[in-house]
Amino acid sequence: MLQIPTYQDVIAAAARLDGHAHRTPVLRSATADARYGAQFFFKCENFQRMGAFKFRGAFNALSKFDAAQRKAGAIAFSSGNHAQAVALSARLLGMPAVIVMPNDAPAAKLAATREYGAEIVQYDRFTEDREALTQRLAQERGMTLIPPYDHPDVIAGQGTAVKELIEDTASEGPLDALYICLGGGGLTGGSALSARALAPGCKVYGVEPEAGNDGQQSFRSGHIVHIETPRTIADGAQTQHLGQYTFEIIRRDVDDIVTVSDAQLVEAMRFFAERMKMVVEPTGCLAFAAACAAGAAIAGRRVGVVVSGGNVDLARYAALLAGG
Amino acid sequence: MLQIPTYQDVIAAAARLDGHAHRTPVLRSATADARYGAQFFFKCENFQRMGAFKFRGAFNALSKFDAAQRKAGAIAFSSGNHAQAVALSARLLGMPAVIVMPNDAPAAKLAATREYGAEIVQYDRFTEDREALTQRLAQERGMTLIPPYDHPDVIAGQGTAVKELIEDTASEGPLDALYICLGGGGLTGGSALSARALAPGCKVYGVEPEAGNDGQQSFRSGHIVHIETPRTIADGAQTQHLGQYTFEIIRRDVDDIVTVSDAQLVEAMRFFAERMKMVVEPTGCLAFAAACAAGAAIAGRRVGVVVSGGNVDLARYAALLAGG
Repeated sequence: MLQIPTYQDVIAAAARLDGHAHRTPVLRSATADARYGAQFFFKCENFQRMGAFKFRGAFNALSKFDAAQRKAGAIAFSSGNHAQAVALSARLLGMPAVIVMPNDAPAAKLAATREYGAEIVQYDRFTEDREALTQRLAQERGMTLIPPYDHPDVIAGQGTAVKELIEDTASEGPLDALYICLGGGGLTGGSALSARALAPGCKVYGVEPEAGNDGQQSFRSGHIVHIETPRTIADGAQTQHLGQYTFEIIRRDVDDIVTVSDAQLVEAMRFFAERMKMVVEPTGCLAFAAACAAGAAIAGRRVGVVVSGGNVDLARYAALLAGG
Repeated sequence: MLQIPTYQDVIAAAARLDGHAHRTPVLRSATADARYGAQFFFKCENFQRMGAFKFRGAFNALSKFDAAQRKAGAIAFSSGNHAQAVALSARLLGMPAVIVMPNDAPAAKLAATREYGAEIVQYDRFTEDREALTQRLAQERGMTLIPPYDHPDVIAGQGTAVKELIEDTASEGPLDALYICLGGGGLTGGSALSARALAPGCKVYGVEPEAGNDGQQSFRSGHIVHIETPRTIADGAQTQHLGQYTFEIIRRDVDDIVTVSDAQLVEAMRFFAERMKMVVEPTGCLAFAAACAAGAAIAGRRVGVVVSGGNVDLARYAALLAGG
């Protein structure tokens, strides 16, 4: 039987994160409000430490290590934001970290992870099994493996962003709808825990790239659907399937899963840059792109939008802005 | 005798702006702190309404109009942020606005100003005298001219940003140094009023582009120096001279005026995008670029940096990020 995390776990995570994670700002945009006839509240996790919400889950998980675990440290496999999240959390908590990354990962990501003090172990994506390698290293060194999303402490940590969003907008009334990007479901699951507890009437939507709608298929079919790695610019949502924990929360607490195209993501990215002066990575544009497409469903409503991160290679970002 | 505004005027401006201007966030960057050995506090006026601090001064000035002035409305000449600031403020206060802009102004700026509901009067930069045209229109229509910087109400309004910055960082102690971009001196002057009142020990630095150091020359010579329109990417600081009011405040309340190169601006712009996930216009990069170059002068210090705005054409921004 899975021990599904609860909103109490989110509260406990918030206490652990206090003073370590940024309480990121909730920004407004009069232009967005006028254009779509709604009131938007943007929770800006692109301003979170290491540039994405992932810090919350990683730091929460590592904070719970006992003395022996701290001594041996944490290990993770990731070439994305989870790598930097575990690396930075380990450094802040004074423990070793190993990140397993493909040897063709972008140099900038390798450098950023190394800058946070982690040891990087590289592997060949075409000949080596990442999970087997990581398991072997974990066992050899006694390190604790922290998966990117399917872990109660990771989910509870991610839930703290929407907890803050709802708290910080509560004085003007509850949110009517909440849009959250969906990859493996850590953020969506954690957010749903907070929304159900703090704003029971709020509709909760997970948003996937059109090309990678395994979550939508899973939600609608009632079982976890696996897909091939999807082709989309939303690299943070290129997951092949939901997790055991995240699926259980999502099927119970999420109202629907919707999808958007890469072209919609670029349009949202340009809006964020031009009108809100924010750099948002493609995955971070999923939620707003879906809200923009919701039409009458959000008219006159108070709509929370989680802007999940801002980690995008500058050259690639410039090309996307320029329409390339 | 000039009636120089005081910090009391900044307090009054803050009351008028309450509920109309955003109280913009103060962001931190652990990366910047580690790299330069200081504690930076970034006051993010790129997230202000219409994308720049200019809204504060314009709204404050227009708020003080009497009934007859409100009926006739406001007029301004500007092809930059002041145009949009006056246009938006007039709309919010329910009065007409005329903006005098060159007929070769970028289409995006014309459109943005029009979107805020202002009437645009265009002129030929090569054959017509902008100021004479504006004065004539003002007289014909009974409109009140709001200059971009050399006006007590504009200066007092601009001072509210640093008032907020100092208030919002006070719990951890006073700021040791404050860097502010300097064009005509409205922001630097207003900021200096707030800093002198709230953080008397704080060093206040105005920052100009190297190519347009009229303010530095004026500060050092003791009289207002006029220069040709400088060639710099910092289009908001292409002023030819300080104003009567702004010069008096700056010579009295500012500690020094320093300069940075366009290359340093691009470096700061890339840092903001890559590490802080913010779109900052070239002029908005002046303050941080100077702080980065300050070396030992800021080591171990608490340093306020005013990020003045984020209005930059996306294609141009993309080219600057890409190193073009």
